[in-house]
Amino acid sequence: MRVGVILSGCGFQDGAEIHESVLTLLALDRAGAEIACFAPDTAQTKVVNHLTGEEAGESRNVLVESARIARGEIADVKTADADTLDALILPGGFGAALNLCDFALKGPEADVNDDVANLVRAMHAAKKPIGAICIAPALIAKVLGKDGGPTLTIGTDAGTAGAIEACGADHQDCPVEDFVVDKEQRIVSTPAYMLGPTIKHVAEGIERCVAEVLALVEPANVA
Amino acid sequence: MRVGVILSGCGFQDGAEIHESVLTLLALDRAGAEIACFAPDTAQTKVVNHLTGEEAGESRNVLVESARIARGEIADVKTADADTLDALILPGGFGAALNLCDFALKGPEADVNDDVANLVRAMHAAKKPIGAICIAPALIAKVLGKDGGPTLTIGTDAGTAGAIEACGADHQDCPVEDFVVDKEQRIVSTPAYMLGPTIKHVAEGIERCVAEVLALVEPANVA
Repeated sequence: MRVGVILSGCGFQDGAEIHESVLTLLALDRAGAEIACFAPDTAQTKVVNHLTGEEAGESRNVLVESARIARGEIADVKTADADTLDALILPGGFGAALNLCDFALKGPEADVNDDVANLVRAMHAAKKPIGAICIAPALIAKVLGKDGGPTLTIGTDAGTAGAIEACGADHQDCPVEDFVVDKEQRIVSTPAYMLGPTIKHVAEGIERCVAEVLALVEPANVA
Repeated sequence: MRVGVILSGCGFQDGAEIHESVLTLLALDRAGAEIACFAPDTAQTKVVNHLTGEEAGESRNVLVESARIARGEIADVKTADADTLDALILPGGFGAALNLCDFALKGPEADVNDDVANLVRAMHAAKKPIGAICIAPALIAKVLGKDGGPTLTIGTDAGTAGAIEACGADHQDCPVEDFVVDKEQRIVSTPAYMLGPTIKHVAEGIERCVAEVLALVEPANVA
């Protein structure tokens, strides 16, 4: 099986959440899946100093920073082809809601990066499973919500859950070690650092989320 | 138990190896250890574009970039006090041999960051265990080697092993899933991405390395 992973930078305040991304890669590798990392070749919405939490007066590229997590093995998401992927996973971090879409700034009125939206739509249309971690389910809700949205989770935050429901998805509360699955639409989600508190809790939810995504791949469909 | 983790940036080509760092944090959290991350508050030796492998014309700070991996929970290594730590672990990545010391540039003639060297010496003098991953054992060899160095591993690379022996340490070849322990000196090392090839192999070695470090903590000494 070949699984796409969409990264959104490197660091939870302005990019992909690093722990969530690494735990996703670990779970996929342990399951024997081939991993194909992608990110948009665009400027980050902002750069945050992760020591102080303040914005840094810098510019960084989402694909270039994501390559730190992927150890250079990554391609522009524009080149991703759903026909060659059996499943897709989106780790979280603010990057998923700042760089892949701008849900963190505009909520239900968010715009989604065209290449990311096209890939998510193509996977969904081909009935291939999609995993979304932490805040990434907001992007899935925005892309797929208008057609009768999937059931998914971002944990228990009522404000964020309400914004996701405003996109047309159904939100379901979920603890960090668990996941929510919409079997019909093949969407799996887990709260991760939307709840935390620490890496061992996040790891349990991500391991179970990834296992469920892989279990939803139809053998006849394997690319 | 409270375990110090010294990071050296964020990205294997110019900082801490991200997978190794996250896997270390995961193993420590799962073992119930309290984690205290540290990094030097200094400029990185260089900044590398991890997509192209080429040097970028940028300047970044080791502590600020390490904070991405530590989710902001990190302090200047200058403030680390061996009396409050039960063990110390150094993940790898070129940052360990560029920013914590300059072994990657000068081999056995390397200089080591004073605060890092002082912390390693204080932990060693107090008979508290130290774990060193990937290329980080080179730093341990340089700091402790002159007093009759510990036995340790960086995998199987003969050139690097020779440079480590020139520091006064004894090198022992080791596969990625395993570790080398010097029980007398309480130094544990594992090759990680010095060998790879993928994250699941690296994870196995790091999990075993961390477990051995924690097993070497003397209960009577717990801070």
